[in-house]
Amino acid sequence: MRPLFLITNDDGYNAKGLKSLTSIARQLGDVVVMAPSANASGQAHSFTPHRALKVSLISQEEGLKVYSCDGTPVDCVKICEQFFCPRRPALVLSGINHGSNSSINVLYSGTMGAVLEASLAGLPAIGFSLLDHGADADFGPSGQYVRDIICAAMSKGLPEGVSLNVNIPAPSDGVIRGVRVCRQSSARWLDSYERCIDSDGRPCFRIGGTFQCDDNGDGTDQWALENGFISVVPTTTDFTAYDSIETVRRMYE
Amino acid sequence: MRPLFLITNDDGYNAKGLKSLTSIARQLGDVVVMAPSANASGQAHSFTPHRALKVSLISQEEGLKVYSCDGTPVDCVKICEQFFCPRRPALVLSGINHGSNSSINVLYSGTMGAVLEASLAGLPAIGFSLLDHGADADFGPSGQYVRDIICAAMSKGLPEGVSLNVNIPAPSDGVIRGVRVCRQSSARWLDSYERCIDSDGRPCFRIGGTFQCDDNGDGTDQWALENGFISVVPTTTDFTAYDSIETVRRMYE
Repeated sequence: MRPLFLITNDDGYNAKGLKSLTSIARQLGDVVVMAPSANASGQAHSFTPHRALKVSLISQEEGLKVYSCDGTPVDCVKICEQFFCPRRPALVLSGINHGSNSSINVLYSGTMGAVLEASLAGLPAIGFSLLDHGADADFGPSGQYVRDIICAAMSKGLPEGVSLNVNIPAPSDGVIRGVRVCRQSSARWLDSYERCIDSDGRPCFRIGGTFQCDDNGDGTDQWALENGFISVVPTTTDFTAYDSIETVRRMYE
Repeated sequence: MRPLFLITNDDGYNAKGLKSLTSIARQLGDVVVMAPSANASGQAHSFTPHRALKVSLISQEEGLKVYSCDGTPVDCVKICEQFFCPRRPALVLSGINHGSNSSINVLYSGTMGAVLEASLAGLPAIGFSLLDHGADADFGPSGQYVRDIICAAMSKGLPEGVSLNVNIPAPSDGVIRGVRVCRQSSARWLDSYERCIDSDGRPCFRIGGTFQCDDNGDGTDQWALENGFISVVPTTTDFTAYDSIETVRRMYE
């Protein structure tokens, strides 16, 4: 029986990056897509506790079914795995996101929220993101790398409880130099809000911002991406700061 | 000058747990509250990229201002720190949540999303949660412990980049046995959806579920809570699975 891939994203079921990922996965197995019915960027690991979620069948053909769901990427993984997968997925894939999820962007990312949710459910999972926000971003140059990473996951597996956050550079010459396994860079967003006043006279705030990352030395995802490599960060759902347990114990117990 | 506390939560500005936390913090310094205008449970680290957010002043008195914002807990931290704090907060406090954010619940939690956001901004931050979902939960028995933890953070600080996920048991005899600094237990939610059909004939899914945690040995937050202790997990925004970097490098580079 062919392996089954569950695919989702946070840009919505109609995004070019999702279609690119789907077409790669179809060469390797059967595919069920369930993706948000609208853009769910910035949804992180949120889910929908307080209302029922609607699922629509968008299309189907041999070896491929595509559904939309009016929830978050995490909702998509939960519902798709439980109700719409004919067998247990061999691998959960999320993306290819239009825009970076490297460094601390992993915290905000709906693409990676879906990946971490799959990991909690015991499923191997990989999130892919391209450093190009454009709706018409070019996913061509990275295609073979994405395929190779999926094949490596199928043949070699992933350490237990570990998923992958894969970010792909978009160098001007289109040449990707290879793959580097890295740690997550520390960074911050310098938020700059556009202020306005609503019709009731209340202040309003629309977010903008600048990404600032000085943690770009050897071994970081920022270094890899700035130097034309695909970054692969092994990612955990255990947020414990182990190095600090003893220090905090002395302070707080 | 008195220290300033920025307080938020995910249950909304009117929640009893928020008021309990605010009244403790007011004994120790000045307070600015900005909390969601509606329940934002399950919002994790999500923020609002695609619309302007409204802020309303709910009340003010000497040393206390309370605002609501129609965004997520992460939005509240961002906007409050940038526009509504008269000086840099000494500490960001989130909660007291009505319900547990121990173990893997930290991934879904809006309460802890706010804490991690503060940590990304370089602010020391603590999330408090009580293991009682009731709107009228009794925050009394834990009051002195919450105050002591806040005082410890003020006098001893926190390791750089580390925030605290504090969960408080609700034992039937009301007796809390002390504080334990722990690691996050691994666990999973066994989701059980209520299925229905909407007026257009499409399937709908409303989430329920059962929390299943067998990782409750010595040193885990689950152990602490099951044995009547407050659990304190030092928490990081670095999701790298460091132990797996070399293994993944051999597989994927």
